[in-house]
Amino acid sequence: MNSFGKKFIFTTFGESHGKALGCVVDGVPAGLKIDEEFIQSELDRRKPGQNEFATARKEGDKVEILSGVFEGISTGTPIAMIIFNTNQKSRDYGNIKDIFRPGHADFTYFHKYGIRDYRGGGRSSARETAARVAAGAIAKLMIKELGVEVKSGVFAIDGIEAQSIDFDYVKNSEIYSLDRVVEESQKEAILRAKKVHDSVGGVAYIKIINSPIGLGEPIYNKLDARLADAMMSINAVKGIEIGEGNLSSKLKGSQNNDQIDSKGFLSNHSGGILGGISNGDDIDLKVYFKPTPSIFQAQKSVDITNSEVICELKGRHDPCVAIRGSIVAESMAALVVADMLLLNLASNMKNIKRVYN
Amino acid sequence: MNSFGKKFIFTTFGESHGKALGCVVDGVPAGLKIDEEFIQSELDRRKPGQNEFATARKEGDKVEILSGVFEGISTGTPIAMIIFNTNQKSRDYGNIKDIFRPGHADFTYFHKYGIRDYRGGGRSSARETAARVAAGAIAKLMIKELGVEVKSGVFAIDGIEAQSIDFDYVKNSEIYSLDRVVEESQKEAILRAKKVHDSVGGVAYIKIINSPIGLGEPIYNKLDARLADAMMSINAVKGIEIGEGNLSSKLKGSQNNDQIDSKGFLSNHSGGILGGISNGDDIDLKVYFKPTPSIFQAQKSVDITNSEVICELKGRHDPCVAIRGSIVAESMAALVVADMLLLNLASNMKNIKRVYN
Amino acid sequence: MNSFGKKFIFTTFGESHGKALGCVVDGVPAGLKIDEEFIQSELDRRKPGQNEFATARKEGDKVEILSGVFEGISTGTPIAMIIFNTNQKSRDYGNIKDIFRPGHADFTYFHKYGIRDYRGGGRSSARETAARVAAGAIAKLMIKELGVEVKSGVFAIDGIEAQSIDFDYVKNSEIYSLDRVVEESQKEAILRAKKVHDSVGGVAYIKIINSPIGLGEPIYNKLDARLADAMMSINAVKGIEIGEGNLSSKLKGSQNNDQIDSKGFLSNHSGGILGGISNGDDIDLKVYFKPTPSIFQAQKSVDITNSEVICELKGRHDPCVAIRGSIVAESMAALVVADMLLLNLASNMKNIKRVYN
Amino acid sequence: MNSFGKKFIFTTFGESHGKALGCVVDGVPAGLKIDEEFIQSELDRRKPGQNEFATARKEGDKVEILSGVFEGISTGTPIAMIIFNTNQKSRDYGNIKDIFRPGHADFTYFHKYGIRDYRGGGRSSARETAARVAAGAIAKLMIKELGVEVKSGVFAIDGIEAQSIDFDYVKNSEIYSLDRVVEESQKEAILRAKKVHDSVGGVAYIKIINSPIGLGEPIYNKLDARLADAMMSINAVKGIEIGEGNLSSKLKGSQNNDQIDSKGFLSNHSGGILGGISNGDDIDLKVYFKPTPSIFQAQKSVDITNSEVICELKGRHDPCVAIRGSIVAESMAALVVADMLLLNLASNMKNIKRVYN
Repeated sequence: MNSFGKKFIFTTFGESHGKALGCVVDGVPAGLKIDEEFIQSELDRRKPGQNEFATARKEGDKVEILSGVFEGISTGTPIAMIIFNTNQKSRDYGNIKDIFRPGHADFTYFHKYGIRDYRGGGRSSARETAARVAAGAIAKLMIKELGVEVKSGVFAIDGIEAQSIDFDYVKNSEIYSLDRVVEESQKEAILRAKKVHDSVGGVAYIKIINSPIGLGEPIYNKLDARLADAMMSINAVKGIEIGEGNLSSKLKGSQNNDQIDSKGFLSNHSGGILGGISNGDDIDLKVYFKPTPSIFQAQKSVDITNSEVICELKGRHDPCVAIRGSIVAESMAALVVADMLLLNLASNMKNIKRVYN
Repeated sequence: MNSFGKKFIFTTFGESHGKALGCVVDGVPAGLKIDEEFIQSELDRRKPGQNEFATARKEGDKVEILSGVFEGISTGTPIAMIIFNTNQKSRDYGNIKDIFRPGHADFTYFHKYGIRDYRGGGRSSARETAARVAAGAIAKLMIKELGVEVKSGVFAIDGIEAQSIDFDYVKNSEIYSLDRVVEESQKEAILRAKKVHDSVGGVAYIKIINSPIGLGEPIYNKLDARLADAMMSINAVKGIEIGEGNLSSKLKGSQNNDQIDSKGFLSNHSGGILGGISNGDDIDLKVYFKPTPSIFQAQKSVDITNSEVICELKGRHDPCVAIRGSIVAESMAALVVADMLLLNLASNMKNIKRVYN
Repeated sequence: MNSFGKKFIFTTFGESHGKALGCVVDGVPAGLKIDEEFIQSELDRRKPGQNEFATARKEGDKVEILSGVFEGISTGTPIAMIIFNTNQKSRDYGNIKDIFRPGHADFTYFHKYGIRDYRGGGRSSARETAARVAAGAIAKLMIKELGVEVKSGVFAIDGIEAQSIDFDYVKNSEIYSLDRVVEESQKEAILRAKKVHDSVGGVAYIKIINSPIGLGEPIYNKLDARLADAMMSINAVKGIEIGEGNLSSKLKGSQNNDQIDSKGFLSNHSGGILGGISNGDDIDLKVYFKPTPSIFQAQKSVDITNSEVICELKGRHDPCVAIRGSIVAESMAALVVADMLLLNLASNMKNIKRVYN
Repeated sequence: MNSFGKKFIFTTFGESHGKALGCVVDGVPAGLKIDEEFIQSELDRRKPGQNEFATARKEGDKVEILSGVFEGISTGTPIAMIIFNTNQKSRDYGNIKDIFRPGHADFTYFHKYGIRDYRGGGRSSARETAARVAAGAIAKLMIKELGVEVKSGVFAIDGIEAQSIDFDYVKNSEIYSLDRVVEESQKEAILRAKKVHDSVGGVAYIKIINSPIGLGEPIYNKLDARLADAMMSINAVKGIEIGEGNLSSKLKGSQNNDQIDSKGFLSNHSGGILGGISNGDDIDLKVYFKPTPSIFQAQKSVDITNSEVICELKGRHDPCVAIRGSIVAESMAALVVADMLLLNLASNMKNIKRVYN
């Protein structure tokens, strides 16, 4: 239940304030150059504490490879990676030890398991996503060798949407914004909310480019379904759209169909996926994040004895989880694509004979 | 790849115009009363040809149980069900034999597999969903014994949204509308599109009531992620929302958090799921369907030799797939819940000892 | 739990005396010629009622393909096959309705599930293996295209072992014996036991030839482990050996190691598998079957109220299940090999680039 | 492919001479007391370097829990454990860097993956089994709470078999022998082989006691099949028997059937499993290990360019892997039983209602 994928499979472990967190990536083909610096650089993109738009909590997030790589090359055996927790302040959580924080998983974990690691949300913390980013970095290395790339950026914050999409601009933006024009307004919205101890939601945009035709294994391992699964598994995500997404429900068939000529599709309302299989066009996803549930205002709640309490949080939290969340979404997309690339090898006898003959 | 679930697992088979389609439902606990009439009645809800808002194509959709039931009771062995195809008119598809219909999976199936069953879309046809509804009926029988129920209805058609939600009204509505007030406008929108050989999109609303707290297996088998996976696997679905959904990306944390008192949650923005685990509140999903890609207007396309052609479809198609799609979404939700109920049995030693001691 | 395989996956359903049994084979690559006559001929090899060494029960075992094949070619979608039960005499079982037959699964099914389909053992009957043979036939078609073949024969009956191995002779032998010389004694042993209403055990020998090097996915999907799993899942199997098998526990390392020269391995004690991966040599397995538990002598037992009874069976049963069991073992071996061939495609980047570049 | 189990799932990682090896145990129910000292004591039983009958190689094998345990209690989240490698002498392997050691997986790993971590066999080394023992210790803690226990001992070495079985004696025996009477001869056989730079095979006997009736999920997750899979996945295992095992192939039905009276089964030829489901009796397995392939005699082999070489091994190796292997087999049995106990929770509605009502 803590593993994802069918052939390119990763398993994560670890809690927010435990000794370490990490992942085991199983199914990485042998012969892949494993660039450790790249993996670290991916973690650095997700890392908190880099500016005023993210939590002030500093986490080193130094990743170490424990297995599966020999002389810089993958061996086909599981690649385990570990990130030791170094900056945990469990005392921040002492006062909410027995309290269920509104909007958090405290209530459900306690009732499901009968026990709860209250330190920073334990396993339910978004800190777990560091392990996904490490696994995703391996996926990116693999899919890049096959020519595929995943890009991401922040499309909207607090309802302020990008008017144009520029994935190249993202790396220059402290908030990973896709649009230089609205970036300032988006930043202001974050700081405004932060000032009143509140938080804002946001939207990440993911684009997979240069995917071969044929990724996705219908009926119950469709590319779009697996992407939806992957995205919805990210903390705070409440909505997913592929291509035209929800808007397509308001369109006519004549508007929404992508007609075709000999050079390819004339439009891309479908978001590059037809019948659960990639059609060679860009694959477009939007991922909707709720506002960070950790806010610093008094909220009604109960404790583990069901006594009513006022919950007042301390600690350091992102005012907008969509920003760092966009990196996680990008990583998850890469992991889905890596899995689909491997699964698709067996689609037809022609492919198979290329390998065995 | 044609199986869904981890413990309550169903596998479907069959093409639109093949001999039969069906499913094998594995993991059904022994001792469940299997009401065959109920299963048939569920298929009848999804069945086409019932009024002018659906395809005129008539499919008997008579389901037959082949195994796993003895004297009306499940035995714990796989329940196979079969629906023989009886009203297939393959000749309707002769003219599009070598043509890729815009908005359909023809293009991707052909390129992935190197072969394509062109008759009615073959495996990619929504006809496959009949098998899901049969499997879903078994799931509903099981979850009902445990007190859980899934409801569905059509929330919007062609952008015309329900202003109030009445699941009881759905069964009186030919278009499964949730709102008697807007139903007429929704119907008119369908007929208007149909008249000009076009189609419309729509939105289904699914509600799971009386779920116990604790369903969902984080991190990679979260309840919301599995629901997203399930819904996105349905033909024509392009967007999914849980609870407040996309709107939550525009809210502040103080607006979106569900505060708690000793009687429970004071609101349900979360849609009944926190940290991927049910919190005991209603579980709310919206599922967005694109307009039917089969329209009867001339469209540009190519054939399998990549020559440009004008595609003109014949045949009989739903002008709005969201209507019958809502039944499929309801079935998929029931299947996810059934799986989660079984998986959750092993969450903690207390549960386990209840069984073994 | 009724599915086997990771990529070439089959699921079986059906009981001994239900309406039908069958299988769904998922993951069959598209573009494979599906020879229906071959599939039927495989079922005929397993079919009972062919001579005095098998049960007199006649089963037509006519297999019908329901899906996944279009114009004689696999389409990449699930291939469902069905065998309707036609010669079921449930009345044969009326007298043992509430009794647990010694050596059978009646006792365990009843206690596990709280219900039992007593007709011919229900799901626990070896009749289920007909579905495996159907699935295995598809596997054989696929692996044959890649040059791999599986052979089987009866090595021993009632302790009478083949002195030499001749897989070509098997098809001439009513008891699938590997050795013309001992065949007569083996037959006599069967008839002798049959005469006194008893049964005998036996041993099947399976050989996989021309396997490429590299099949098997260590550590927990090793080729030998999957073969052991597959074989032990067959009714009445109680022991499995790979290569030198149990005897290797009595050898010295210097005797058991297969030394190598530039032409290959100098011996094959390992049975063609090293570290769970095929080494290119013949893969050798022995599969040990217990004597048929259905004997026609009075046996002590209890009924479902735990009252002591004398169990006296009627009906028609194989005096030696190893004979028809050898065909099932051969089929299971083919299914394992097919799965491994597909899984191995993703072992290294070189293979993968052959497909995508 | 490096994970085992369906609900109680463990994944291992790590190579013989890498930084660390370890496992992630997923599906451990919350609320289980995790006794770290017990886990370490299990690893100590498998640890090499303890006497002249095992390799002189000393491995500290200190295990550390990284996640999933809070204040000594399992939380329901993945339990990751790590063992850092501390006594690796890679230089021992410098001379065989490009050579395939007879009887080892060097040849197959190299050809499958196109790369090979030659240091101590890399991933194919039996060192990986330390991670299984750590995972198995968690399984033992869980099954013990439910009253089930797994015992093991060495039944035979170099063909010298126990004449009587005494599991209590095992802990007093340096070679984990089941029979004080033959122990001395078994030890001598080992030392005799060691003296001439050779190795011997052996047999482990595993007994699972006090298993509830009902473990095992037919048809493709039978208890005996999963045990066979588990055992065959252990390095050097070449044969498996359940209950009477291979001998049953020489028995008559009248001899092999276990008759029943109101107090239970009158014999246990079946080894406690009928139809793939535990019958409440002791579950008996024999596991046959080949002699250690690492011997210190000159052997013919080839290098990676297929040039013929004489392979002369150095280093430190067990003269009989069955001894420490018996601990691994015991651990794997516990892991299978733990998985089956969890899977069986969902067998029938009665069990399920005990949890939900």
